[in-house]
Amino acid sequence: MRPLKVAVLGAGSVGSQVIRLLSEQAGDLAARVGAPIELAGVAVRRLDAPREVEVPAGLLTTDALGLVGRGDLDIVVEVIGGIEPARTLILGALEAGASVVTANKALLAEDGATLFEAAEKAGRDLYYEAAVAGAIPIIRPLRESLAGDKVTKVMGIVNGTTNYILDKMDTYGSGFDEALAEAQELGYAEADPTADVEGFDAAAKAAILASLAFHSRVTASDVHREGIAEVTAADVASAKAMGSVVKLLAIAELREADGQEAVSARVHPVMIPRSHPLASVRDAFNAVFVESEAAGQLMFYGRGAGGSPTASAVLGDLVTVGRNRLAGGLGTGESAYADRAVLPMGETVTRYHLSLDVDDRAGVLASVAAVFSEHGVSIQTVRQEGRGADAQLVVVSHEATDAQLAATVEALRGMEIVRDVTSVMRVEGELT
Amino acid sequence: MRPLKVAVLGAGSVGSQVIRLLSEQAGDLAARVGAPIELAGVAVRRLDAPREVEVPAGLLTTDALGLVGRGDLDIVVEVIGGIEPARTLILGALEAGASVVTANKALLAEDGATLFEAAEKAGRDLYYEAAVAGAIPIIRPLRESLAGDKVTKVMGIVNGTTNYILDKMDTYGSGFDEALAEAQELGYAEADPTADVEGFDAAAKAAILASLAFHSRVTASDVHREGIAEVTAADVASAKAMGSVVKLLAIAELREADGQEAVSARVHPVMIPRSHPLASVRDAFNAVFVESEAAGQLMFYGRGAGGSPTASAVLGDLVTVGRNRLAGGLGTGESAYADRAVLPMGETVTRYHLSLDVDDRAGVLASVAAVFSEHGVSIQTVRQEGRGADAQLVVVSHEATDAQLAATVEALRGMEIVRDVTSVMRVEGELT
Repeated sequence: MRPLKVAVLGAGSVGSQVIRLLSEQAGDLAARVGAPIELAGVAVRRLDAPREVEVPAGLLTTDALGLVGRGDLDIVVEVIGGIEPARTLILGALEAGASVVTANKALLAEDGATLFEAAEKAGRDLYYEAAVAGAIPIIRPLRESLAGDKVTKVMGIVNGTTNYILDKMDTYGSGFDEALAEAQELGYAEADPTADVEGFDAAAKAAILASLAFHSRVTASDVHREGIAEVTAADVASAKAMGSVVKLLAIAELREADGQEAVSARVHPVMIPRSHPLASVRDAFNAVFVESEAAGQLMFYGRGAGGSPTASAVLGDLVTVGRNRLAGGLGTGESAYADRAVLPMGETVTRYHLSLDVDDRAGVLASVAAVFSEHGVSIQTVRQEGRGADAQLVVVSHEATDAQLAATVEALRGMEIVRDVTSVMRVEGELT
Repeated sequence: MRPLKVAVLGAGSVGSQVIRLLSEQAGDLAARVGAPIELAGVAVRRLDAPREVEVPAGLLTTDALGLVGRGDLDIVVEVIGGIEPARTLILGALEAGASVVTANKALLAEDGATLFEAAEKAGRDLYYEAAVAGAIPIIRPLRESLAGDKVTKVMGIVNGTTNYILDKMDTYGSGFDEALAEAQELGYAEADPTADVEGFDAAAKAAILASLAFHSRVTASDVHREGIAEVTAADVASAKAMGSVVKLLAIAELREADGQEAVSARVHPVMIPRSHPLASVRDAFNAVFVESEAAGQLMFYGRGAGGSPTASAVLGDLVTVGRNRLAGGLGTGESAYADRAVLPMGETVTRYHLSLDVDDRAGVLASVAAVFSEHGVSIQTVRQEGRGADAQLVVVSHEATDAQLAATVEALRGMEIVRDVTSVMRVEGELT
């Protein structure tokens, strides 16, 4: 069998692990693919940069565009990240006849359509298991295992940094700033943590998951995004008192709107009961929870980041794509046949958990309940806690549109008897 | 596009849900496969049996062999179960040119080799996601997503009945008989619960998982099997006192033996710490925990049985197989290239947790420790509890061969100062 020629774009933490595994697992990979894999070139920014893996000097190049355009490559692995030059390189690789494996969530979430169309036109595979939740197989299960079922909801802890921070806040009662500083010290958060903390990273993954689960095109800009910087120790304590925990979730959901099925895609902090499978996902682990009509509830759990776990996902794709090359076939391509609309956040149906500091006088509960009712929001539970200056109302609403709920909170803030709205959090799962 | 002709063998709880979904999801299935799916025939034992789904009378037949031999079928779905006539029918279908999707764990675990060879010879797909852990995608992730990685261990809660029973024993402190009776009343256990309770069902799944994870042939008879009938309320309480829980696990593990990598495949009750992801799998849910070199720890969770969840897995396979038919390609086939030996249980390395009722006198701990040492077993922790007639030793060993551990227990039972060995349980994960 002729060997399959593979080029790797980028030799950072993921790329170097891909290169290491290609060499260490060469025998097994050849047996599984049906032909040996030959590392044909590695594109880097600087030839003399320090690297975690040794690359034969003859294979290194700074001319990534020249590499992908060589014409003799079977597979190009793109692990540079970011929009450009990654997009140009992937398009160039496909045009030159190579199949592509990428871990590039940002690019897929912003401009997946261009890539998928180019792959289809070229008759080549474009695989991207590593783009969402690192080592956790989630793309393939959604695309293939559940292809005969109807997925109705996907909820994921897809950002390890924010899960680490929220887990520490939950475990030690620490505030956001303190937990973030600890995460930075331990290398779980970057010096500029914006992409993680503000939910940009999770939003890109939400767009990819929503597109895949609902066979529609959802981009990062379609995803409603709220980060965790506003989550306070009081919010977390309030959740704890309810037997719940606060997680940053990427949610993709199918919802009826005006008689049509539309997609809701969003990233925001959520209060979930501790009995929910996602609640026990600790530290920087990731997990994706899926609900479908026939299969019911599924969850996929593992390491969402890191060079080695991400490289595992890249190589799994590489084996499949390699087998397809040899067989002259193609994998399940991308499909957006359902072409569902994306719901604006205001029309998305959610539930709220609210804590209010209120005056301790007769009729407070009734007045507050009236405000909910005026805005068309029905209350599931309301609990009065504390007396005098500590009097508090804890309210959990039934489902209503996010706009109705936001308007209710706005109105509550304007009430004289409401001294402060101390916590507003969306809710998933049944709180007890 | 010409429609793909599909025959379903068996119209029981799984078959009827497959037939229902084929009709209800017809539009989505056609879009995902690339051609409509046509139900071409349904083989049943009795034409007039009551069924959960309506099948056009013209499609029903009792001549299953005639149906699979028709020659115009694209895909045959086998959901009869058992060894015969399922094997003959699958072989007949492959020979007649159809691809096959099966949920038949017993047959795959007993004689998978025959089926896989027939599929390869016929140049047809044989898919079986539904055979292990129902709706949970585990076959595809092991076979494809982790194909570039090295799997070192698979531990699964793959039998819902026994998990339900053990969960009730853990939650309510009930005994095995009581929990089994409750499970039978609720329909979680059959009138004759042998296949579940004695671990036969889990052993078949262990064989399939071990074969797949380690690219070797492991049959059900290679799997060491112990059920849960001997698990007592005292065992469960003892685990609880250690912050642990008892689960029936199917374990497939790669182990060094005489300088070679060999496979250990076994089913037995295990004590695992409550912090382990498998510990929180409640009721009749299933979960499969995977460890691999690059990806690290992964877990897959969901419903392991039931008509509708199993049908979801069958249809996922059907979509992939259907796409392969249309493209003229084949999926990743079975591979046993590594051909690793299976370790006898005695040579498998495990750890034990032991509770001993002992005489409360000086030197007891030293005498007991000496017995471990004589058998080459080192002790991780030993704790003396209670005084006088309630004196107890709780011992957790380090890793040793199962034969050494069994001999140690045997010797302990013969000691005068050991009044009783009240609990012997294997251990996975770090007990604290």
